[in-house]
Amino acid sequence: MIIVMKQGAGQSQIEAVVARVEEQGFKVHLSRGEARTIIGVIGADEHKIQQEPFEVMDGVEKTMRVMQPYKLASRDFAPSDTVIHANGVAIGGQQIVVMAGPCSVEGREMIIETAHMVKEAGATVLRGGAFKPRSSPYSFQGLGREGLEYLAEAREQTGLAIITEVMSVDEIELVGEYTDIFQVGARNNQNYSLLKALGRTNKPVFLKRGISGTINELLMGAEYIMSGGNMQVMVCERGIRTYETATRNTFDVNAVPLLKQLTHLPVCADPAHGTGMVKLVPAVAKAAVAAGADVLMIEVHPDPARAWSDGAQSLNPHQFKQLVDELRPIAAAVGREI
Amino acid sequence: MIIVMKQGAGQSQIEAVVARVEEQGFKVHLSRGEARTIIGVIGADEHKIQQEPFEVMDGVEKTMRVMQPYKLASRDFAPSDTVIHANGVAIGGQQIVVMAGPCSVEGREMIIETAHMVKEAGATVLRGGAFKPRSSPYSFQGLGREGLEYLAEAREQTGLAIITEVMSVDEIELVGEYTDIFQVGARNNQNYSLLKALGRTNKPVFLKRGISGTINELLMGAEYIMSGGNMQVMVCERGIRTYETATRNTFDVNAVPLLKQLTHLPVCADPAHGTGMVKLVPAVAKAAVAAGADVLMIEVHPDPARAWSDGAQSLNPHQFKQLVDELRPIAAAVGREI
Amino acid sequence: MIIVMKQGAGQSQIEAVVARVEEQGFKVHLSRGEARTIIGVIGADEHKIQQEPFEVMDGVEKTMRVMQPYKLASRDFAPSDTVIHANGVAIGGQQIVVMAGPCSVEGREMIIETAHMVKEAGATVLRGGAFKPRSSPYSFQGLGREGLEYLAEAREQTGLAIITEVMSVDEIELVGEYTDIFQVGARNNQNYSLLKALGRTNKPVFLKRGISGTINELLMGAEYIMSGGNMQVMVCERGIRTYETATRNTFDVNAVPLLKQLTHLPVCADPAHGTGMVKLVPAVAKAAVAAGADVLMIEVHPDPARAWSDGAQSLNPHQFKQLVDELRPIAAAVGREI
Amino acid sequence: MIIVMKQGAGQSQIEAVVARVEEQGFKVHLSRGEARTIIGVIGADEHKIQQEPFEVMDGVEKTMRVMQPYKLASRDFAPSDTVIHANGVAIGGQQIVVMAGPCSVEGREMIIETAHMVKEAGATVLRGGAFKPRSSPYSFQGLGREGLEYLAEAREQTGLAIITEVMSVDEIELVGEYTDIFQVGARNNQNYSLLKALGRTNKPVFLKRGISGTINELLMGAEYIMSGGNMQVMVCERGIRTYETATRNTFDVNAVPLLKQLTHLPVCADPAHGTGMVKLVPAVAKAAVAAGADVLMIEVHPDPARAWSDGAQSLNPHQFKQLVDELRPIAAAVGREI
Repeated sequence: MIIVMKQGAGQSQIEAVVARVEEQGFKVHLSRGEARTIIGVIGADEHKIQQEPFEVMDGVEKTMRVMQPYKLASRDFAPSDTVIHANGVAIGGQQIVVMAGPCSVEGREMIIETAHMVKEAGATVLRGGAFKPRSSPYSFQGLGREGLEYLAEAREQTGLAIITEVMSVDEIELVGEYTDIFQVGARNNQNYSLLKALGRTNKPVFLKRGISGTINELLMGAEYIMSGGNMQVMVCERGIRTYETATRNTFDVNAVPLLKQLTHLPVCADPAHGTGMVKLVPAVAKAAVAAGADVLMIEVHPDPARAWSDGAQSLNPHQFKQLVDELRPIAAAVGREI
Repeated sequence: MIIVMKQGAGQSQIEAVVARVEEQGFKVHLSRGEARTIIGVIGADEHKIQQEPFEVMDGVEKTMRVMQPYKLASRDFAPSDTVIHANGVAIGGQQIVVMAGPCSVEGREMIIETAHMVKEAGATVLRGGAFKPRSSPYSFQGLGREGLEYLAEAREQTGLAIITEVMSVDEIELVGEYTDIFQVGARNNQNYSLLKALGRTNKPVFLKRGISGTINELLMGAEYIMSGGNMQVMVCERGIRTYETATRNTFDVNAVPLLKQLTHLPVCADPAHGTGMVKLVPAVAKAAVAAGADVLMIEVHPDPARAWSDGAQSLNPHQFKQLVDELRPIAAAVGREI
Repeated sequence: MIIVMKQGAGQSQIEAVVARVEEQGFKVHLSRGEARTIIGVIGADEHKIQQEPFEVMDGVEKTMRVMQPYKLASRDFAPSDTVIHANGVAIGGQQIVVMAGPCSVEGREMIIETAHMVKEAGATVLRGGAFKPRSSPYSFQGLGREGLEYLAEAREQTGLAIITEVMSVDEIELVGEYTDIFQVGARNNQNYSLLKALGRTNKPVFLKRGISGTINELLMGAEYIMSGGNMQVMVCERGIRTYETATRNTFDVNAVPLLKQLTHLPVCADPAHGTGMVKLVPAVAKAAVAAGADVLMIEVHPDPARAWSDGAQSLNPHQFKQLVDELRPIAAAVGREI
Repeated sequence: MIIVMKQGAGQSQIEAVVARVEEQGFKVHLSRGEARTIIGVIGADEHKIQQEPFEVMDGVEKTMRVMQPYKLASRDFAPSDTVIHANGVAIGGQQIVVMAGPCSVEGREMIIETAHMVKEAGATVLRGGAFKPRSSPYSFQGLGREGLEYLAEAREQTGLAIITEVMSVDEIELVGEYTDIFQVGARNNQNYSLLKALGRTNKPVFLKRGISGTINELLMGAEYIMSGGNMQVMVCERGIRTYETATRNTFDVNAVPLLKQLTHLPVCADPAHGTGMVKLVPAVAKAAVAAGADVLMIEVHPDPARAWSDGAQSLNPHQFKQLVDELRPIAAAVGREI
């Protein structure tokens, strides 16, 4: 951390800041410029120091962080890519993993039928929500345990791995009995109670970026889980909230290569939420693969116009099959396979 | 809801949409323009209809919502202002309520001392966090039950009401034993599991706008709680995330009068989080009062430079007293009192 | 346009609105719901009607636009893709066009050397700024006419087409003497005086999206130029301003397929400004091609660490050559060539 | 500026960076931490150094600016408030100045009538657009010279000062013949050709913040004008573009006190554009005064529902008079007068 003193800050103000830094077990490095004094804070645990209290000390202009606030999630911690295994599927390796399925599990036949179709098209993980975070209390809230059972049956029949969302600490045990991968949705990206509890499980976690989460916050979310002992975390770009209203969200394609550079964790892309519009999903899925994503999550519904949720951004099985076929040569062009 | 058909949409496409609308128990009103056909959806429960599935039907260009998706929280539902009572304090009436205290309860003496000081300056509610949502897992996470006990003791000694944050469904019972008002933080604004559970309690809830929450989402959060039976909800503007980095957040002062027009619930303002900088808090607190806020929440710490959290945006007791004194004539200018 | 009346709006209020609509030469279509009356405005010139005045009429809740406010730029106006020709280069056809070169023309040899290098790597258009919009008045402002002469000489030697920025109405004549394509920068996207004047020229215009411009505003900018008679416009996604600070801008990859669907004009992508970081440019350039861009603009400098502007986002010639080579199989995968 | 080297950057990389810094006439201060080396750049002209080229040098992680990039606009340059005089009106002093009038000058009688009414209510400056930046080429573009003449006549009759927008370098001479204050609109905030040309005039300039301009960019815009020799600049908060769609813009009330702290220039507020909705203008105008604004600009139209532009955010004369009356006690509460 660097502390910039105000122009004309006095010697006693500088000394007070230095004393406070040293009190916390860090060393300082003073740099007196013509206009200002700058205080460098040196120590191995810089990610643990708090900037804020220094900002209200007399004579301080501002503080700036030099190191990332995360450690376990960083490339410095683990230079080679982490590969996560879920029901036989290797996530984060040379093969690009396609996770597909409906937003919500709407019934037994519906999910089983969809599972067969997405498997045939090339998916290896089946997605489907049993507990649903809906923006209206009047909307369908998910089938709960019943939905989990149907998912497990679909896994049984197809051999696919399954992923489903967990929304609350008290649901972890139940969801964990069924799922291969816990999904944490965008709205729970900073639900620290949930993240900490997932850090005490031993199942992979698929962590979505917050609705307006920064890349830094996404990695801090991963750090929360990892600092609890569970190192099997995937991070997912799913579009961010911007001023643009022509699309539901803005898929931040920059995040894909940047995350690959900052972290060793698998990097996922969710073009359905990233765009909110079926007609943009294929092009953005291709872009994500070209940009280096390890995982694609695609919403697929047997009849999108009758979907109980997210119909506007779900592909039908035919569209999904065509998309996967079109993705293969792009994957090949960047040295990967699907 | 209005469904806009594409230019050149065929008769059978229009009929299919009409049939789907009617299937769901709504009536339609067709309007054939020179360029496009527009289908109006008519019914008393418009806030329950889903737009999305219609957007993927053949021939549909887009859908537009006409009515608000919330009902209980709206002005139409309750034309006069809701007044909420907490330990003798009336919130939402002619008197502007000042809630003050530290970000975190750091110890027994600290919170009791602060309670006396903020009371003397004019506050009637004491705030302080016992369970803390911190962006780093390496930061102080709150004193938990111990913190709640100190808060209760401070209430005992001063007669102030108390408000403290609840982060998770499994904490509600414990926190509810102590607090007068549940606070839901910005990061949990769309933690629907938590909101639903709070809807089943009978204590007032202070609901903060999400970090990048819309005004609509804030009111839908209130609707979640109210639809569970708990009508005692306050909504709080606390700054939103924008591209501007000169301040921590952008206090959305427009939200204050707009919320007053849209809802009957008390409207709160949090200038500390809204700015992130002590030096801006007084001016923005004044702005909030001038704009019509019913409640001000202000972070006050006996020694901000030694605060365990949010030091950079906390007033010291002297600054707080001066601020309340300066707020009184502004309150008077808009026909209120502090 | 649709005008939504308030709940309980009276008959005389409705009649006043209807009268005002008809006054302006449009027809109305009334739809009386249980809760509200909705007034549809019908007419061929809907893109010319103003919403705003209706919003302050008594009894009006809000207005909603149904049709796009642009006409000449829309797909409805010209269903097949527009192909623009500049010094023998066809822009918008089956071949993806690569425009490359330095941010600023820094000298004669520098631009000529760069021209030869980018041509060899596969570019067909040379970019370089002679008039520079710099955020500081203390920064290098461009070589002006001298820079234009060097660009023209580079064209002479290489056969490349050239593109350079024009910032002001009074520069159009001078810049037009030299350039093959006028570039309008992000900061001038809503400089309507400039757009109108360019609409009276007969040279192609490369129009960048504003720094926080919507897709709609980008197309309205094109409409400004086209309504003046110049139909040779390209629109360029170059990253938008969001809350994310890990990158300079957020490249809005959604905009690429959406623009292809909304307009017949060539769609360009600028990954250098879209990311601001050399280390992200190749991945985002690949994403843009996979998403369907017709044109890539890439900043290339012989020695980025000594560039007078935009060094942090410029590739060196070696990196550029490698990028173009890696783009070819992706272009092929989406049925294009480079 | 501070240059942070990568973990493990080599000695030769550090030396290369140091050499490059010294080449440009600055001194360096090296700070070797356990993990990283940090290079401080020291010199009186830090606002002139370019960060970017350093970011692509081998071994460099990132650069951080310590000082503001503006000088003449900063509080350090002129500690006391600048007061600007326009036709007898002192702007930036103890008296809060109210500028009022229609968005567009629509005719002779209309502007003269409005001038009398706003003067009577308490305004001292008359606003009105003769050259209009409209988002559609099909909208009314302003009366041009004719509008300027009517404004001048209104000044003649009322003694008010006048302010009107200038959009282009070639309009400066004409507009300057009539106006007392040049207005630069949000869309031209980074039209550097225009700012430079206004820096060579000797009339006050009212500079609006860009549609998504940062506070820093607003002050750099002022610096552009001031560096040309014209020190009479006012800066205006007019709402920024955010993800919130319930209002047209988000009025950034934080900017008011922050600007007062960063600059000596008068700070203005435009609640009409800041909200876009008549029903929010009064509350936000009050907030701006409470937060410390020196100037309020208010759109007033004799019949907003028939305004040719900006009707939805214009007060009628009656509403305006009432607002000014309500503002007086708030001004008094913060030690000012209207």
